[in-house]
Amino acid sequence: MNNQQLFENIKKKGSFLCVGLDTDVNKIPAFLRDTTDPIFEFNKEIIDATASYTVAYKPNLAFYESEGMDGWLSLEKTTQYIRENYPDIFLIADAKRGDIGNTSSMYARAFFEKMNFDAVTVAPYMGEDSVKPFLIYSGKYVILLALTSNKGAFDFQFTAEETSGEKLFEKVLRISQDWGNEQNMMYVIGATKVEELSGVRKIVPNHFLLVPGVGAQGGSLQDVAKYGMNEQCGLLVNSSRAIIYASNSLDFAQKACESAKETRDEMYGLLKLKGLI
Amino acid sequence: MNNQQLFENIKKKGSFLCVGLDTDVNKIPAFLRDTTDPIFEFNKEIIDATASYTVAYKPNLAFYESEGMDGWLSLEKTTQYIRENYPDIFLIADAKRGDIGNTSSMYARAFFEKMNFDAVTVAPYMGEDSVKPFLIYSGKYVILLALTSNKGAFDFQFTAEETSGEKLFEKVLRISQDWGNEQNMMYVIGATKVEELSGVRKIVPNHFLLVPGVGAQGGSLQDVAKYGMNEQCGLLVNSSRAIIYASNSLDFAQKACESAKETRDEMYGLLKLKGLI
Repeated sequence: MNNQQLFENIKKKGSFLCVGLDTDVNKIPAFLRDTTDPIFEFNKEIIDATASYTVAYKPNLAFYESEGMDGWLSLEKTTQYIRENYPDIFLIADAKRGDIGNTSSMYARAFFEKMNFDAVTVAPYMGEDSVKPFLIYSGKYVILLALTSNKGAFDFQFTAEETSGEKLFEKVLRISQDWGNEQNMMYVIGATKVEELSGVRKIVPNHFLLVPGVGAQGGSLQDVAKYGMNEQCGLLVNSSRAIIYASNSLDFAQKACESAKETRDEMYGLLKLKGLI
Repeated sequence: MNNQQLFENIKKKGSFLCVGLDTDVNKIPAFLRDTTDPIFEFNKEIIDATASYTVAYKPNLAFYESEGMDGWLSLEKTTQYIRENYPDIFLIADAKRGDIGNTSSMYARAFFEKMNFDAVTVAPYMGEDSVKPFLIYSGKYVILLALTSNKGAFDFQFTAEETSGEKLFEKVLRISQDWGNEQNMMYVIGATKVEELSGVRKIVPNHFLLVPGVGAQGGSLQDVAKYGMNEQCGLLVNSSRAIIYASNSLDFAQKACESAKETRDEMYGLLKLKGLI
């Protein structure tokens, strides 16, 4: 996929929603736990219920790894199901990987070749050679952590440099411009740090941003759109728990559908306000 | 395991060697590729050949993930084989994970509960709440990335802070002292940055350091011991490629054994020089 195709899907659906498939076997409806593959069954229902309002899905790898081999199988089935039934979907592996060059090459192979994801989240701490092996795949994206949505973001990401006063997350945005471009890189910018969004857009005006932290974590969709939206939308706003766990009864898929639709409707309004649809 | 037990093993074996099981199916001897599980067969041979000279093994997760489900099975078999046959071994998941709190909890569960590793490498970029969920497991360790062995380490890890001049990796060492202690945290310090080791030891005198970068990456074992060894040794020096790929013919296990023994002999001398054995 490329930015233009992603933007076309956003316009078509009137949505820049990414649904996070953070599927925890202990949080899904009890009646699903007796099936052969509860995680996959849950995902399948959630996907069918939300796909009309969604341009991207983002399984968080931790939730699958914590189930061992069974979890990996559920993940493979989930990505395959999306590919077969919803070919327009942008598929993100939320993996936050990053290692020395020869190792990152192996991760790139895992996510782009073996599992056919469109994008993978990568941590920047180890620098250029930990990111570049992901960038050689045409039509695939690194989504680099810049400013994360959690409290711990304040521990290091705001460290201001001696000579310039530049904060670490700004340095990550700036330096990484030399590694790739807006057709193979995106950035994670948390919705809970919305006061930094205008500054972020000065450094990376054209890149897509993956924005977690709306919903359960408290960020505002209105503010994200106000300060972060560009002429190609340039936003994928993630919601996980508020959608997939909207109910844990028999109506869980219906409630997920309603929650996704509600978010889509708000997004539709914001896209219209910006004159993009 | 705790630091004292690890130190006892180091004294018993006269070695602080960690063998990195970065097993790439394309690099192992051709005749193994026809077996049902080439990665596990290779690992088994390497482990049996090197366990007398080694206190730790460190599978790098990327190499297993890149093989999909088969790779995860090979990893499970490998860790199980080590647990059953070499119970004294300290087992490190080189995974470089790190995510918001509820997600890091899932990774902790994956590595400590499902796979029974003693330690997992974690990236510090997302701060405290991304690390703490790993620290609640008694007898288990986070090995936090501080100063890595690769070239990309210079991109961000040396960023000096505005007011104090403190470098980012020093800040990681300092701040993370509040999260845990030397019985549940270690640090990654690359052997290729040995000129920083004395400074590192001023901040973390008692913690164990996991030191990659000796061998294929060019770091010096002598220098690492000179500037990094403390009264409990405090070092796990990793070597991967120089040992596991010492040969790719029929004699690969024998050559790995010789390479590990050579490193052990050098380590034995360094432990003796320090008066620890």
